[in-house]
Amino acid sequence: MDEFALIDAIVAALGGAAAGDGIVLGPGDDGAIATVPADCELVSSIDTFVVGVHFPAGAPGEHVGHRVLGASVSDLAAMGATPLHALVAVTLERDRERWVLDLARGLASAARACGIAIVGGNLARGPLDITVSVHGIAPRGSALRRSGARVGDRIFVSGNIGAAGAALAELGSAPPPIATLAKARPGDACYDLARYYLPQPQIRLGIALRGIASAAIDVSDGLVADLGHVCRASRVGARIDLERVPLAPGAVLEQAVAAGDDYELLFTAPHGAERLLAGFDVTEIGEVVAGSSVALLRGGRPTDIAAAGFRHFD
Amino acid sequence: MDEFALIDAIVAALGGAAAGDGIVLGPGDDGAIATVPADCELVSSIDTFVVGVHFPAGAPGEHVGHRVLGASVSDLAAMGATPLHALVAVTLERDRERWVLDLARGLASAARACGIAIVGGNLARGPLDITVSVHGIAPRGSALRRSGARVGDRIFVSGNIGAAGAALAELGSAPPPIATLAKARPGDACYDLARYYLPQPQIRLGIALRGIASAAIDVSDGLVADLGHVCRASRVGARIDLERVPLAPGAVLEQAVAAGDDYELLFTAPHGAERLLAGFDVTEIGEVVAGSSVALLRGGRPTDIAAAGFRHFD
Repeated sequence: MDEFALIDAIVAALGGAAAGDGIVLGPGDDGAIATVPADCELVSSIDTFVVGVHFPAGAPGEHVGHRVLGASVSDLAAMGATPLHALVAVTLERDRERWVLDLARGLASAARACGIAIVGGNLARGPLDITVSVHGIAPRGSALRRSGARVGDRIFVSGNIGAAGAALAELGSAPPPIATLAKARPGDACYDLARYYLPQPQIRLGIALRGIASAAIDVSDGLVADLGHVCRASRVGARIDLERVPLAPGAVLEQAVAAGDDYELLFTAPHGAERLLAGFDVTEIGEVVAGSSVALLRGGRPTDIAAAGFRHFD
Repeated sequence: MDEFALIDAIVAALGGAAAGDGIVLGPGDDGAIATVPADCELVSSIDTFVVGVHFPAGAPGEHVGHRVLGASVSDLAAMGATPLHALVAVTLERDRERWVLDLARGLASAARACGIAIVGGNLARGPLDITVSVHGIAPRGSALRRSGARVGDRIFVSGNIGAAGAALAELGSAPPPIATLAKARPGDACYDLARYYLPQPQIRLGIALRGIASAAIDVSDGLVADLGHVCRASRVGARIDLERVPLAPGAVLEQAVAAGDDYELLFTAPHGAERLLAGFDVTEIGEVVAGSSVALLRGGRPTDIAAAGFRHFD
């Protein structure tokens, strides 16, 4: 297919997902145009997903679209930002042209679910990878950062962790359809794959944490690794009570705290702050302490389980 | 090098280019934070550059940094936007770690020249490519689009064209240092390579064209191909007088009108509008007509020179 015909087909596949509140001009020009409310700041992030590294070569385009969009928007959730728009750059081989239309349908479906518009993109010829640039808004001064954790703050995580990591062992075969994955509940046979392919960015929780959380991050590299990022940015240490970590059904603790891809929110807040989060599924798992390391306690005693987290370059 | 150490080294190489007017928070968190003035709209674009397609495998990182940043910001110039910030995602092989620090230095130098801050990015392991997401601001309703050309408008192009395309034949050997290229003038031996590696986004001209140009685009796919994009978006045709096209020294007309990468601005405006652009190097080259095709005239008669422009997928 000719490049411009393929772009037209991709934009058609995006449908209504290419428009939205605040979007003045969508795909098709040198740039997209959007409005940012006067009392808000712009929050921006970018992520790349490489075939064979961040998704399997045999994964359907629709599944990959859901995964890359959800994972990217999770960075906005971690900042407490309301999603505004996304740009998607795809580098692909010639034989991926049908696949990229499925990708667009997955992107569009995930974007509608997140309330983010896909307003532009780029196609290039080369080894398959997908880069998603996401942008959101937050009232001036309210965006959450990694750097505000204070000694004595409690450490919380949303939802459960370990399922997406457990799914890595199942990526060799064709996944169930999106409609099946979307209905999966904890304990279902395909729950792990649902967590891997359909990340649920915690947008509502992130917004609720404005003014409450002292620091926040999403669990993408692994619970321990991401807590390490918060500690480094905040110049503090942390103590995690492993018994309190909310595990996904069937997850193994040692793997769960090291595995990434859950896209839950990990945040710190003063003692008692959880009372302000009624209706959200959050669990207190530890405390911010002086120092610079993350201690994992079992029965109140330090353990030495290895939990380095996902290291992109090893 | 460890991923996080490499990121630290890259951020150090960016230096002051990671900050700027309107930047509240730069690299290091889940997202960057910026302010958009209340009377402005946000303009956003994304581009990917693949090794062996958009730059040679042997090109120094510093040169590639200049090229990808300048070419990306050119989309903001074509929209009449003032640059605000950029996010840069790099996918690279392990043996490119020293190279990527040179890339960061080139990006930083080009970013300072453009007045754009590099506020975030992503590193992934895989075949080398670079994706740049750029964002700028323009007073509400003033951004230039491709879609406003009207029959009778005149067609203009800035600067000269054909040099970057002529450089393609010279990409096999190591280029002169950036400092040498930066001093190249039309007619110098390395002028073509300077145009290829150091695109000069026409930011000032784009801003000056607000309220004057009826449509605008940057010359990235080739003069004829990009004019075709304007015609398609505006539902008009165009007539170009080939004798009036401002060629770079030594450029061959047939190649020049088909070659991309010059990153000049191509725009339409009502007759006489060029009087409002005193001090800018712009040349009237044709007229917007009814229809849907781009006619190339020589001595007032149609020619049939092939000028399809750069087609990313052929």
